Amino acid sequence: MSTFGTHFRVTTFGESHCKGVGCIIDGCPPGLALTEDDIQPQLTRRRPGQSNLTTPRDEKDRTDLFPRPSHADWTYLLKYGLKASSGGGRASARETIGRVAAGAVAEKFLKEAYGTEIIAFVSSVGKIAMPFIEEQNETGVPSEEFVEMLSTVTRETVDAETTRCPDKEISKKMTQRIIEAKEANDSIGGTVTCVIRNVPTGLGEPCFDKLEAKLAHAMLSIPATKAFEIGSGFGGTQVPGHLHNDAWVQKVGRKGQKVLGTKTNFSGGIQGGISNGENIYFRIGFKSPATISQEQKTTSYNGVDGVLATRGRHDPCVVPRATPIVEAMAALVLMDAAMIQLARHSAAALLPPMPDTPLRPAPFVMPVPGGQAIKVDEASKPKTE
Amino acid sequence: MSTFGTHFRVTTFGESHCKGVGCIIDGCPPGLALTEDDIQPQLTRRRPGQSNLTTPRDEKDRTDLFPRPSHADWTYLLKYGLKASSGGGRASARETIGRVAAGAVAEKFLKEAYGTEIIAFVSSVGKIAMPFIEEQNETGVPSEEFVEMLSTVTRETVDAETTRCPDKEISKKMTQRIIEAKEANDSIGGTVTCVIRNVPTGLGEPCFDKLEAKLAHAMLSIPATKAFEIGSGFGGTQVPGHLHNDAWVQKVGRKGQKVLGTKTNFSGGIQGGISNGENIYFRIGFKSPATISQEQKTTSYNGVDGVLATRGRHDPCVVPRATPIVEAMAALVLMDAAMIQLARHSAAALLPPMPDTPLRPAPFVMPVPGGQAIKVDEASKPKTE
Amino acid sequence: MSTFGTHFRVTTFGESHCKGVGCIIDGCPPGLALTEDDIQPQLTRRRPGQSNLTTPRDEKDRTDLFPRPSHADWTYLLKYGLKASSGGGRASARETIGRVAAGAVAEKFLKEAYGTEIIAFVSSVGKIAMPFIEEQNETGVPSEEFVEMLSTVTRETVDAETTRCPDKEISKKMTQRIIEAKEANDSIGGTVTCVIRNVPTGLGEPCFDKLEAKLAHAMLSIPATKAFEIGSGFGGTQVPGHLHNDAWVQKVGRKGQKVLGTKTNFSGGIQGGISNGENIYFRIGFKSPATISQEQKTTSYNGVDGVLATRGRHDPCVVPRATPIVEAMAALVLMDAAMIQLARHSAAALLPPMPDTPLRPAPFVMPVPGGQAIKVDEASKPKTE
Amino acid sequence: MSTFGTHFRVTTFGESHCKGVGCIIDGCPPGLALTEDDIQPQLTRRRPGQSNLTTPRDEKDRTDLFPRPSHADWTYLLKYGLKASSGGGRASARETIGRVAAGAVAEKFLKEAYGTEIIAFVSSVGKIAMPFIEEQNETGVPSEEFVEMLSTVTRETVDAETTRCPDKEISKKMTQRIIEAKEANDSIGGTVTCVIRNVPTGLGEPCFDKLEAKLAHAMLSIPATKAFEIGSGFGGTQVPGHLHNDAWVQKVGRKGQKVLGTKTNFSGGIQGGISNGENIYFRIGFKSPATISQEQKTTSYNGVDGVLATRGRHDPCVVPRATPIVEAMAALVLMDAAMIQLARHSAAALLPPMPDTPLRPAPFVMPVPGGQAIKVDEASKPKTE
Repeated sequence: MSTFGTHFRVTTFGESHCKGVGCIIDGCPPGLALTEDDIQPQLTRRRPGQSNLTTPRDEKDRTDLFPRPSHADWTYLLKYGLKASSGGGRASARETIGRVAAGAVAEKFLKEAYGTEIIAFVSSVGKIAMPFIEEQNETGVPSEEFVEMLSTVTRETVDAETTRCPDKEISKKMTQRIIEAKEANDSIGGTVTCVIRNVPTGLGEPCFDKLEAKLAHAMLSIPATKAFEIGSGFGGTQVPGHLHNDAWVQKVGRKGQKVLGTKTNFSGGIQGGISNGENIYFRIGFKSPATISQEQKTTSYNGVDGVLATRGRHDPCVVPRATPIVEAMAALVLMDAAMIQLARHSAAALLPPMPDTPLRPAPFVMPVPGGQAIKVDEASKPKTE
Repeated sequence: MSTFGTHFRVTTFGESHCKGVGCIIDGCPPGLALTEDDIQPQLTRRRPGQSNLTTPRDEKDRTDLFPRPSHADWTYLLKYGLKASSGGGRASARETIGRVAAGAVAEKFLKEAYGTEIIAFVSSVGKIAMPFIEEQNETGVPSEEFVEMLSTVTRETVDAETTRCPDKEISKKMTQRIIEAKEANDSIGGTVTCVIRNVPTGLGEPCFDKLEAKLAHAMLSIPATKAFEIGSGFGGTQVPGHLHNDAWVQKVGRKGQKVLGTKTNFSGGIQGGISNGENIYFRIGFKSPATISQEQKTTSYNGVDGVLATRGRHDPCVVPRATPIVEAMAALVLMDAAMIQLARHSAAALLPPMPDTPLRPAPFVMPVPGGQAIKVDEASKPKTE
Repeated sequence: MSTFGTHFRVTTFGESHCKGVGCIIDGCPPGLALTEDDIQPQLTRRRPGQSNLTTPRDEKDRTDLFPRPSHADWTYLLKYGLKASSGGGRASARETIGRVAAGAVAEKFLKEAYGTEIIAFVSSVGKIAMPFIEEQNETGVPSEEFVEMLSTVTRETVDAETTRCPDKEISKKMTQRIIEAKEANDSIGGTVTCVIRNVPTGLGEPCFDKLEAKLAHAMLSIPATKAFEIGSGFGGTQVPGHLHNDAWVQKVGRKGQKVLGTKTNFSGGIQGGISNGENIYFRIGFKSPATISQEQKTTSYNGVDGVLATRGRHDPCVVPRATPIVEAMAALVLMDAAMIQLARHSAAALLPPMPDTPLRPAPFVMPVPGGQAIKVDEASKPKTE
Repeated sequence: MSTFGTHFRVTTFGESHCKGVGCIIDGCPPGLALTEDDIQPQLTRRRPGQSNLTTPRDEKDRTDLFPRPSHADWTYLLKYGLKASSGGGRASARETIGRVAAGAVAEKFLKEAYGTEIIAFVSSVGKIAMPFIEEQNETGVPSEEFVEMLSTVTRETVDAETTRCPDKEISKKMTQRIIEAKEANDSIGGTVTCVIRNVPTGLGEPCFDKLEAKLAHAMLSIPATKAFEIGSGFGGTQVPGHLHNDAWVQKVGRKGQKVLGTKTNFSGGIQGGISNGENIYFRIGFKSPATISQEQKTTSYNGVDGVLATRGRHDPCVVPRATPIVEAMAALVLMDAAMIQLARHSAAALLPPMPDTPLRPAPFVMPVPGGQAIKVDEASKPKTE
């Protein structure tokens, strides 16, 4: 399936070695001012060869007589009965260019409409990890500093480090680890953490299209991903309920108004599949790149044992370049969810008010953390400040 | 969205306290013999109150004046501007009854058509974990015993333990941990691991509907889930490429024929988003249940601080009962992916053969691990032994 | 496919002779007050046996050894390799009960939100036709009286006649024609015309989901339909462009404001696939019912010639009972299109205004015939008076 | 919505005056040999300026201050709050280039897999009509000659006439009619009839996606269409059931085998929404083109009365050039329906046979008119001779 989304639909095209790659966006709201400058920066951040940690591709001289281990060569052959003429075909990470372009458009809408900010950064390389992960097995939950950092990290602080890890000390160690892999003709994996701030409330659909389910789907569709966790994630499974529950508290919004929020945020900004207005944050695991230059014992398509040595230069670690792709997929998920919720809200706003019930916020008010309470029959829209 | 799937479409209905719950299945292949006996066993396995570890629900006397912490009460109110008349509405785990029924139908098809076996079991409760997890931080990858166990575990050995953990020693410790939570009016989370054996090759779609992306989507749509990992998962991100790559080897199938397979299986049976015929295995994190009987400080819908005490009895740990739901969602994902691939394969089988290329298995052969090589222009179907 | 719609999704279930039939509605906007009284009237209008023109069904004694001519018996067997246990299975008109129930919900929303009125009536039975059709071959376009009638016809005037043709003189002739068919153990077809008034502007999507395309899809999915035309339809193909074009004129809305409308309405309220606010009207052809009591020469499943005589009583003409089904399907199409457009509009309303261009109605005004001009950044919704 | 299809998905892009137009095809079965020669012929047949009846476009000098009557200018403005920079934007017939390209691919598959032939031709221009239509009001049903012609007409005989009407006498009159419209700076409408031969049986889905419903949807999405009828259509509503029913008869297939077919074909090859193997035929009404060079009284966007004179040259009649677009949309509908049915059939073929029932063709045989009966557990595919 080359199309993603229901309202804001993105269809990508292009392969690893074909003439062009790109995307069609269908269903973009009218009135969004767009120039190339809205899209190019994220494409630039995704581009290969940005530093000595990510290397220009030169795949032409690898042999084709063996299916590359842990690549899609064999499974595509099983699926289609045909081999792509070269490289990974549609399984190539080059396909993500179209995603990044489309994500930049969605991101601009979310920024202008809600002030939404999406920031992804590298949280671990191999066993070199930001504190969240190191200490996770003691406490089972993200550390306070980590959660605090999620509220302040910017794309600028991320890009200040070649590794795209905003913690300078950890970043140094990560750089060493990547260079070590590079010099050994080896590769190493890592994790990307993504935070979304100023999220409109009410996004996500009951049952099958819970917001975290859509995010997981989007993230696991990025090449080389193997794992996804939201909020406290796997670590949180170890924390008893009385510590894990996020108590409701009154908060003061940016404009001084009172809003309902949560004291902790182990839920990761989503409860019952629906965004509650707190920061959404999640973590994605990327495996060590399958393409390495050392010799590997393997077996050919016809069952002949041999050794595969992929010459040329390849990224020893993909997570730095993966950050704009993660941001793009997050933007696409939120954009689509926002439009579905906008349809519901603005439809509801056209109806006469229902008789009040004690627990119902009269008349269809949309409270948002940090934002002004908005009556939807005036505005029919979720909004953050 | 109450519908899941493209070909084999399941639409569920019903809420936490309504008269009936269930599902509509649309697009089931004709000729599948079905009786209630095909469906009831899994419903029985999901049912509340099966042991002293899972307790009958009696939610009637809880108060409604406070949104329950880490429940969907508040987000549903934000989303719809209305409260469900009682309980969690569509966010209730009771909705999963329809999923389990539909999953049993899909599972029967997969069993009859491919011999596919789907087995989910409890792999951890709190910090009590099967070896896979305990040792993961040392080696970064699943232990050999764990991978071996995935090839042999059966639904019977799982059900032999109340915890649904097939390791008797670990199971005892888990039981103690759950009882401890129960006696403290507290709750505890855990993980479920699921293995799928005899998977047809070629399932999953390029780009956005990779098989692991669909599985992640399906699993994160189950209430209380927070994390998903496939194959080596998060631990695998710490393993360098030369150790992580799954080398190709020739294997001997059940019928004695030679087939191409992988020596290790850190990929978890999926490469480039497409199943390769090895076992698929993944792990899902379930948070500690939000409903606990101890008093919790919280704030009412209108911002008044107070204490919420949910009387009644609730599951202190949901993972044992979650196993049939995980199996059901896995079956729905595979069923739908199989029908999409069957459409492609049988369409391709109608075409005249293309001129041979050196690397192409002549003429559209579908090799399956452990299975007879099958020419699709004879049978137009993926098949396992 | 048993599901219709993208936002407001209806899934029907049930067969010709099974225990229950019905539907699941998914995605209904919250806050729509519903009781059984909103739904029952349309179900009652669809019910068999309402007059001596429509007769109670008693299909039990028909023989099953021959595929019924012009029924779905044979094609379902071809498709599924199985016969429904009795009657027409999912092809039965009984399936439309779920559609009518769901349509009543959609219709209530459209009425409350926009004042939309949907009225279907019988416009011909055999060769007995309202003037629109009789004179069509002279002028090629609907007569002025007919178009005028479309603005005034009500469900009450339609129901005043057993035939559901609001023209009393024509209705009498239709009655005779139907009785003639009944007495001859024969059947006769006819057409249903449907008008939709107070249509929100801007409904329908470019390219593949033009509003008339969705209406045609919906109408041709009703059993026994063979034809669909919108506005001037087939007759209009005979009228030269200078007569057929609908000139723009200023009109005075109900509240006295000036609105842009069309002088004639050969377009049928849709231009370029998008509703323009004028009345939408279209006509559907229903074939003569295939079930008749006279003997018919035919051939058995196994190729043996024979005579099929379907005993029991059947509707000699289905068009009177088809009117609520046509109204239901029209409501489902409009409801879904309205929610898609509401998503777009309310998303656009969140954006800062674009620099004005000469031809753009500042700042995103939604003019509606007969309605007050509404700025969407205030209300983000299409509305009729 | 710029995407059409579920399996064989086509997404078009481009506007009336933009740099490029085209399409993305997603889900094409592997192994279909394709070159430009498979696609160019249909693009050439669609191209403007092929004869003195269809004229090159030169729209640059028309005025933009008035919404063009019966164009999409005004409705797009209502919908988007923005005007396309020039011409009709996505509503332009230029968008159909992508459809024709994709349709050519689908058509090649259908031809190679089933021998399916799709031929569209002009059946009327204004009141000049082939006998089918002229006599329809007498008999209500297609004449015998017309039905006979549907079995023999070829794309070559259609292209032999500039009008694309295969009846030379009628074609002459049509030419005169079009020239008459051209000289009067006027335009004229017409109808296109399309026949599909060698249709696989079993295509179309129950309930909402009946094959005729999908065809109607596809055809009414072509710019300028106003009407669709299948088989006997509107005329057939006047024919009593005992004459309209298509009696089953045994036929002799091309290979001499006995097959079940219908004596007449008023159903148009589809019964209960499912193809029965007989020829599918339908008719589409195209309105007179809205763009004419004579002066037209109209009103500006701001309500000022005026006169619009569109200079430049335009097609006075679009039906000749519409024929490849109709063929393309028919191919896309059939292709998608075929893949859905192939998924069902090949899934069913994997199951053990069910116990025989008297009426069931043992064991899942697919009888096709003119074709060899095929056991699907051998071939799992519908096939025609």
